[in-house]
This record gives sequence, C-alpha cells and structure tokens, in this order.
Amino acid sequence: MVTCSAPTNTVHQTLSKWQNITVLLKQQKLTISALCPYSSQLKTTTTVACSRSFQEDRIWLNGKEEDITQPRLQSCLREIRRLARKRRSDGEADVDTAGLSHKVHICSVNNFPTAAGLASSAAGYACLVYTLSRVMGVEGELSEVSRQGSGSACRSMYGGFVQWIMGQQGDGKDSLAQQVEPETHWPELRVLVLVVSAERKPVGSTSGMQTSVETSSLLKHRADSVVPARMKEMIEAVHKRDFTAFAELTMKDSNQFHATCLDTYPPIFYLNDVSRRVINLVHRYNRHYRETKVAYTFDAGPNAVIYTLQQNVEEFVQVVKHLFPPETNGGQFLKGLPVAPTTLSEELKQAIGMEPMVKGISYIISTKAGPGPRVVEDPSEHLLGSDGLPKESA
Amino acid sequence: MVTCSAPTNTVHQTLSKWQNITVLLKQQKLTISALCPYSSQLKTTTTVACSRSFQEDRIWLNGKEEDITQPRLQSCLREIRRLARKRRSDGEADVDTAGLSHKVHICSVNNFPTAAGLASSAAGYACLVYTLSRVMGVEGELSEVSRQGSGSACRSMYGGFVQWIMGQQGDGKDSLAQQVEPETHWPELRVLVLVVSAERKPVGSTSGMQTSVETSSLLKHRADSVVPARMKEMIEAVHKRDFTAFAELTMKDSNQFHATCLDTYPPIFYLNDVSRRVINLVHRYNRHYRETKVAYTFDAGPNAVIYTLQQNVEEFVQVVKHLFPPETNGGQFLKGLPVAPTTLSEELKQAIGMEPMVKGISYIISTKAGPGPRVVEDPSEHLLGSDGLPKESA
Repeated sequence: MVTCSAPTNTVHQTLSKWQNITVLLKQQKLTISALCPYSSQLKTTTTVACSRSFQEDRIWLNGKEEDITQPRLQSCLREIRRLARKRRSDGEADVDTAGLSHKVHICSVNNFPTAAGLASSAAGYACLVYTLSRVMGVEGELSEVSRQGSGSACRSMYGGFVQWIMGQQGDGKDSLAQQVEPETHWPELRVLVLVVSAERKPVGSTSGMQTSVETSSLLKHRADSVVPARMKEMIEAVHKRDFTAFAELTMKDSNQFHATCLDTYPPIFYLNDVSRRVINLVHRYNRHYRETKVAYTFDAGPNAVIYTLQQNVEEFVQVVKHLFPPETNGGQFLKGLPVAPTTLSEELKQAIGMEPMVKGISYIISTKAGPGPRVVEDPSEHLLGSDGLPKESA
Repeated sequence: MVTCSAPTNTVHQTLSKWQNITVLLKQQKLTISALCPYSSQLKTTTTVACSRSFQEDRIWLNGKEEDITQPRLQSCLREIRRLARKRRSDGEADVDTAGLSHKVHICSVNNFPTAAGLASSAAGYACLVYTLSRVMGVEGELSEVSRQGSGSACRSMYGGFVQWIMGQQGDGKDSLAQQVEPETHWPELRVLVLVVSAERKPVGSTSGMQTSVETSSLLKHRADSVVPARMKEMIEAVHKRDFTAFAELTMKDSNQFHATCLDTYPPIFYLNDVSRRVINLVHRYNRHYRETKVAYTFDAGPNAVIYTLQQNVEEFVQVVKHLFPPETNGGQFLKGLPVAPTTLSEELKQAIGMEPMVKGISYIISTKAGPGPRVVEDPSEHLLGSDGLPKESA
C-alpha cells in the first residue's frame, strides 16, 4: 500500500502484562490482586493505526477479529477521544487532529496464555489505552481511562512497584495508580511464573469480583480493616528491600484474596490441587531453611507467581522440576531469563517429602520486575501492515 | 472367663458419629463445623469395662491398642472420675463405688473412615464420655467433659438438631451443647455423605483451628459479626422446616469456614478438586430448577455432606453416579438407607454440563438425622469379652 497516513499514525506499544509489581491494591471495588512483574516473556504488543480510508473501528486480538462494540472497549475509545478533543479545544499545540476524526484499527497480541489468571485483560487494556493515547496525542494521567477497560489496568501504566490507591469518591475517579519505586530499585528480586494450565478459567474475574462485593461479608471487612495497614507495611518492605516482610505479606494477602472468593456466593475457585501443592511446597521449603526464602501469590487463576531473591532461583527451579517433572513431549519447560540446572541435597528432598506429580505444571516463566509501557521503534514489530490489516504473523 | 464384675460393669454405648444436625456452632475457639446427622451407617461403638483385676487403664481403637496416657484421653478420664467422686461425696445413692477405684478397659470402633473429615474424634470422645459416665454413675451435663476430648464432641451428646453455644467465660465452662429440635422434627430431611476417594485426599493439615485463631483476621470478624446472626436464622429455619433458608445458610457457612482456613497462615486446605466439583454441581443443579433443592457442607476434609429433602434423593444420587461413575472393582457404591435408581433427563444432564470424573467419589452414605447416644442392650454387640480384652471381631 502507498496510501494515507497510516504508517506515521501507527503507534506501536509493547507493554508487559506484568510490567510492575503492584504493591498492594485496593480500589473502590475492593479487589486485591497479585503482585507481578514484567519481562519480555510476558508482554502484550498493540498496534493502533488510524486512517481516513478506514470505514469503521476494528480490532483483532491474538489473530482473530473481535467485536469492537463491546462496552469496555467502547468506553476506552470514547474516553480517549474525549480527552483528545478537550486538549484540542484547550489549544494544545501537538494534538493530532486527523486521529480524532478517523477510524482506528487495533491489533493486539499476548505472548502468554489469556484468560488463565495471568491478568491478560489488565495488560491488554493498559497497552491499548497507552497506544491510543499516543495516536490521539493525549498525555497525562491515564489510570482512569484504562480502568474503563479493566479495573487493574491502571497498575500496568507504570513500571517497577506500583500502588493502586483506592480513592474516596463514589465514582472511583480518584482511584489511581502510583509508582512506589522504579524497576531498578530491587534488581535481586526475581519472579517465576508456574503455569499450571492454559485452560480458560471457569469464572471471569470481573463478574466474580462483583459477586464478591455483593455477597461476601469477609471482603468488606478485609477492605476496611485489613488492607490499609498491610498496604503501609508492604510499601515499607519495598522501600527497605525487606524480602521476608515482602514475602509474608504477599502470601497472606494472596490467601486472603482467595478466601474472600470462597466466601462469595456461589463461591469462586481459582486455586486448584496443583496450586495447593505449590503453596505447601513453598511453606515446606521455607520451614526447612527456617527462613522465608520464597513466596507465592495467585491472581484469578491457578498459576503460581513465585517471588524469590536471585541467589535462590536455581535451587527453587530445580525443586519445582523435581516435584513437577516436565512432560517429555517437546516444548521448553523454562522460558525467559536463563536458570542454570543444579543438584538438590537429599536432605532438602526429604524435608519437602512430597511425591512428584506429572502434568502438574506445563512450564515456568523466569522473569523480573520491568519498566512501564513504551513505544516500539522497530517497524518490523508492527502488527498492522501498511494496508491497515494485521500482518500474517500477527 | 468367669471372673469379677466386668460383665455387669460393662456399659455398651452406640453413638453415631453424626447423631445430630449441629445447627451452627460457635465456641470459644470460634470454630464452625459442618452440619451432620446420624445413621446406623455412621456410628462409633464403645465398650467400657472396669474390674478389680485390671492392672491399668487401657484403650483399643479400631482393633489396635493405643496409648492411654495421651492428654485428651487423660483429661476425660480424670474429669469423669472427679464428677463421680463429687456425686459420691454429695451422698448420691446410685454411684458405683467400684467403678471409681478400678481401672478401666475401653474398646471403641468406628464403622466409617477415620481422619477423613467425618468428625470421627468428636463422635469417639462423645461416645467415650457417655459410656464412662454410665460406668461411673455420673449424670447431668457432660458437654464440658466431652470437650476435654474434642471441641465438637459436646454436640454429639444429643440427637436431632443441636446448637453449640459459645459461652462468655474465658475458660469455656459455659460453652455447651443444647438440643434445638429432636430428630423426629423434620423426617423429610435427608443426608448423603459423598466419600471422596482415598487417592484424592489432600495433604494432611499439620496445623489447625488453633493456628486459625492466631493468624486469621477474617476468623475473628466471622465469629464476632457474622455467626451470631446466622445462628438465629438457622435456628428459625430448623423450627420452620424451611429448607431453602436452611440450605443457603449451610452452604454459605461451610464456604466461610473454609475461607477462614485459607486465611490461616500457613493456609489450611480441606477442600480438593473433587470437593469443588461437588460444589459446582450443586449450584448448577439448583440453578436448573431455579430452586435450592440441594445443599453441601464440608467439615475438616474433602468429603461432601449433602442435604436434600426426601423427594429429591433419588434424582440427586443418580446425578452423582452420572458425574462420578462408580469404580467397577467391587464394593458397594451406595451404603445406608436404600435409594432406588432413576433416569436423568437429557435436559438436566445438559444443564449441569460437566464431564464425568472417574475415581472421584468412592461411595455414598445415605442417611438422616438420628437420636443421641444410647446403651446397647444386646451383649453380642459388646466389644470386650468377659476377660476384659477385645473380642476377635472388635
């Protein structure tokens, strides 16, 4: 194609699904979700193009065209366009007027299992909003816009350690994300995602959380009386790089989040028998060393996110391999940052004392905290071709 | 043998493990346990003999001699003997003085799986205390004595629907069981125990309720703010035989109990993937009929206790058989009260829409609410022979 402004109007945005460590978050919906970081192994890439030649707004997700009229997408588009118009009428110089009147084509790809509790919708919406904002020339606080798509997407607008502030207003307009520390603050902190199952979760987390708010009396107590103090402790643990405090708060908070899911009526289950084995494993491992060396957290799905320090990564990965022997039929068991194999002492194996379980964990993603959204400069990574349609590879 | 007073001093006691429906219970330890009823399919039988010829106190449990010096057994024995001495010094006529100075032999058998969350220790201690009280000539309130053995044993001292009153005193002396309605009050109420296969049992919990009290902030909130109102509603539902109210309270309370277990640090898991399938099944079944026809509750283990009314038993048992196909290698799948087979409509199967799972449930016990402890008059059911030692069959 040789037409239009599509190529120059195309903004490429790579956003990690987990580009930050959410310090602890509490919004008006009272969710507290997992604490998870970024890597290039866990990312959403979104390309947005706008052109006079486009007949209508369209979206492709993971290679398949989806319905752009769905309310959450429409809210994001409407809100970004409203902010862009506002900037234009406020006389801001750099607003791209073309982007406002033209239709958009959106193409987005996750390189991790979607709808499996890896917070894909949060990353997806954060990336979408960030990309749209670049196309439309919108700057400033985008938490509110991204929350139109997914409550937790506002966290994903920053890198490093991010706090999600609950806010006081009934409409949630002051419920914002705020960076606590950048990703360079605690380089020794490492993350292992144990991917249990790529199967779709039984209950989508938005409807789940709404039901929890309506039916769980424990959730209200948690939000009012437990979270505010924990949030302070967590921020302090991050500031001080106090792994023990960070780890214990993380585990307790994950457990309490899942407790409120169980207290929902009808109950919501995200953890399965494999998740529980991982939890038991972590407690046994720590007990063996009489030290909290490893922590787990679970979001809306059975996959475990493990936090540990650099010096424990090799041994703990070996423990996971020992207890969840990789399936032999191809596929890489360890993805992401390389981890050298090591040997486990008989003493440690005995202390853990669990039987290996085949087919429990399909692979491990090894990663660490990373930066926030950024523009992809390399045109070869654009997901839309010059004709405004997804490239074959997208 | 032809010796001593053993035969006449022998008191036989058959106590169902689940001889009552605990309306809701809240004691000083803040536990709330399952609601479960009696049947001859779920019973503990205990024989106590005392004789001048016995050299020491001894106990046999399920065919194996156990250590009688364990603290909880010693507390029960000491307390019963103290009450007996008190009665004698108070000048009560019918106190058996011999029983006080002699050593006892105790033999106890459960006809249901022990340590599988079927509250075997509660029934065991209740039966033991009741039997000892008959041997020693002790009458009156035995809740406090039985609680020395197992917190929930006080419930098992009565038949029908039993409330466990929390009490106000720090030492728990006013934490007593009280009958709400006798077992004849609601004859249509039926109970199905779905015994989860041994291979699907979770890792045993090392810590328990004590750890929950120390570490779960949700448990304290539950005890202070949720349970008192629920207790009132539950008693009213039982009085009125309001199945819908009874069922929903039962399910919500079971879920909340397990939520506080998960909020314990380290967390405690009693439910497994089979338990969660049963929970989902019950909700789908009820949704299909737009009526709460079936309820579940889980105690400290993965086995489900199902409540339903007489007219739904056949269909629901068939649903369970459909989704958890019985293993073919022998053994009765349905034990207890007979249930006729029936045919499921395709509509119902589709509404449930779950894939059958082999080896999930090993058998069903079909039962209903029953009476409290009672003396077994038939000497052939005595577990100790005239020599004071267990019969071969015990």
